[in-house]
Amino acid sequence: MQTSELQWTSHEQEIVKTAVAEAHQREITALVQVVHDQAQAIACMDDLWQLHDFLSARRHDLDGKYDQREPTPLFMLAGLIKDGWLSLDELTGLAAPKLAKIKALAQML
Amino acid sequence: MQTSELQWTSHEQEIVKTAVAEAHQREITALVQVVHDQAQAIACMDDLWQLHDFLSARRHDLDGKYDQREPTPLFMLAGLIKDGWLSLDELTGLAAPKLAKIKALAQML
Repeated sequence: MQTSELQWTSHEQEIVKTAVAEAHQREITALVQVVHDQAQAIACMDDLWQLHDFLSARRHDLDGKYDQREPTPLFMLAGLIKDGWLSLDELTGLAAPKLAKIKALAQML
Repeated sequence: MQTSELQWTSHEQEIVKTAVAEAHQREITALVQVVHDQAQAIACMDDLWQLHDFLSARRHDLDGKYDQREPTPLFMLAGLIKDGWLSLDELTGLAAPKLAKIKALAQML
């Protein structure tokens, strides 16, 4: 990891913070819709525990994905772009090498 | 524990099996309705994880409550009566001392 990847200006940090919050909100909104639909179709005990298992997995996934303690958000951002929760355009303002690395990572994931 | 409480005829076992299955189905049906209602009201992440926590607790509770490995079903039956999922009438056919103990236990719980 080059030093430049670890150095984020306060302006860049603000861009990332806003973009990640936006992606998180989109993902939660989509999940709420899925849970509405799944819950409506519940008819028996197996369906109940299937919803429970689904929520356990999604909670674990989201807790890890949006963990802000990562030393560098490159992988987090690349993952969000790869999964369609964020577009590269929303990261405009980051230094060009960072954008290039995020784009390359998103294609490799 | 007197020996008589541990001795269940096959007829009594059948009565208990049917009654417990009925109580379990009632409880699941009620839970499905609660989950329908709760899920419909979900609007944000906190609501999602609140439903998840609720399902975790109910699943743990139900797994324990209907555990068929108990040496005697007296406490299970008393608990189901106390919580309103079963009525004493549905246990008609059990030996009178068992019914008396289940009734007394249900009032003590």
